[in-house]
Amino acid sequence: MVLEYDGSSFCGWQSQPGGNTVQDAVEAALSEIAGEPIRVVTAGRTDAGVHAIHQVLHFDTRAERSMSAWVRGANALLPGGIAMLWASRTADDFHARYCAIERCYLYLLLNHPVRPGLHQHKVGWFHHPLHLESMQAAARMLVGEHDFSAFRAAECQARSPVRTVTRLEVARLGNIVAFELRANAFLHHMVRNIVGCLIYVGKGKFHPDWIGKLLENGKRSEAAPTFSASGLYLAGVVYDAKWKLPPFVEPPLAAIVPGMTRPVTDMS
Amino acid sequence: MVLEYDGSSFCGWQSQPGGNTVQDAVEAALSEIAGEPIRVVTAGRTDAGVHAIHQVLHFDTRAERSMSAWVRGANALLPGGIAMLWASRTADDFHARYCAIERCYLYLLLNHPVRPGLHQHKVGWFHHPLHLESMQAAARMLVGEHDFSAFRAAECQARSPVRTVTRLEVARLGNIVAFELRANAFLHHMVRNIVGCLIYVGKGKFHPDWIGKLLENGKRSEAAPTFSASGLYLAGVVYDAKWKLPPFVEPPLAAIVPGMTRPVTDMS
Repeated sequence: MVLEYDGSSFCGWQSQPGGNTVQDAVEAALSEIAGEPIRVVTAGRTDAGVHAIHQVLHFDTRAERSMSAWVRGANALLPGGIAMLWASRTADDFHARYCAIERCYLYLLLNHPVRPGLHQHKVGWFHHPLHLESMQAAARMLVGEHDFSAFRAAECQARSPVRTVTRLEVARLGNIVAFELRANAFLHHMVRNIVGCLIYVGKGKFHPDWIGKLLENGKRSEAAPTFSASGLYLAGVVYDAKWKLPPFVEPPLAAIVPGMTRPVTDMS
Repeated sequence: MVLEYDGSSFCGWQSQPGGNTVQDAVEAALSEIAGEPIRVVTAGRTDAGVHAIHQVLHFDTRAERSMSAWVRGANALLPGGIAMLWASRTADDFHARYCAIERCYLYLLLNHPVRPGLHQHKVGWFHHPLHLESMQAAARMLVGEHDFSAFRAAECQARSPVRTVTRLEVARLGNIVAFELRANAFLHHMVRNIVGCLIYVGKGKFHPDWIGKLLENGKRSEAAPTFSASGLYLAGVVYDAKWKLPPFVEPPLAAIVPGMTRPVTDMS
């Protein structure tokens, strides 16, 4: 299944005792349609406040329903902040998490003296002007296979800190600075930690080379704090074509960024 | 002052006993900064659920504060769904409502089989495919000076039903159908009633000429029901240049629409 959600309405993806997670809501809806308890597996467990444009999940069931019954049923039962976009029967050996080849995230940052209002919860915010070229130079150092220990949350449970970043673009559209990040997989908080560090470079606190030093020394304590979840979107997940999943919109920046810009006109 | 807000967090603009309106929040913040009760006058009183990209207001006060003190103070005190973008001292004869020459609204409609999730509260929704050219032909009939009685809420308090629509564009961007409407002023629910009628034409229920008949007979009962407030944005207000207000982003469609699109890829 492919779904989208407004992360600001939920306490993250993963099921928890307190409830109100995306997983809880999705499993409750699908279990009702199936008439049996359904547990879902997702491509990426997003944190509280993180949105999804194109999240992928799978589940096993003995229930026989048409694909439109799954989609329509889910959208009738799910809370308004989650929509089920697509469903298909798949091969038994498909696994939403283990078959994913690449994850794509977007981070949208409002770079404007005034904090967000209309787009609260949908953009991060930094008030001082950011230097785009410095951030782009720093971003290029992160592309490739690296030990991302300096960009990894203390509570990260991944066995290895090595990940391969295949794309890291920083673009300015009006007063939105947009980050597009792709990797085979991401460590816990890796995107938000990278964004925080690129902002440190963009505001001139450090030279772009600082990123290279962080990669080398692997010290989380020397890197920037984890940046706000508000502007983060899971934009898509890439699978081998043999699984026949629908593609996500490319490039994802084109699909979402201009909607968040304020007039470029100087209002000072 | 210029402000933006997420209308889904508030019970409309206008102050009311139950509270939780944009006006209540703005007046509370400004009164605290001024140290005296402040009453504000706005260019357009938006309904519950209607957003503002560029709303204009004025107020009178004896308090002497720098413009940045008003803006920073307001943004520190206002709820997260409202942001104050700009403030300036103005001439005594400026009036946010009576000096406004033109109002510009946007309506964003998700035209997709699946209801909104990620963009809940920020887009209207219609599930059947809409025929763009028919809606554009119908829209053209509404441009100019007309009696808009058929598009006016029963509770509308305006003395005259005559308004001059200066622009009414309908565009498709991916699976968003966007309406840009400009007029000297709008009657109560006029934008949402027009959008509802254009959707009736777009889905093929009526020929575009039906709009001309509605203008002629002025019968609200023959027109479409008031469409959802969710996709409606006050995009800007035009004043004479002598008042020196900051311009709003032009064309407003370019500023907001692509952010709401879903992949055009067929997911059926």
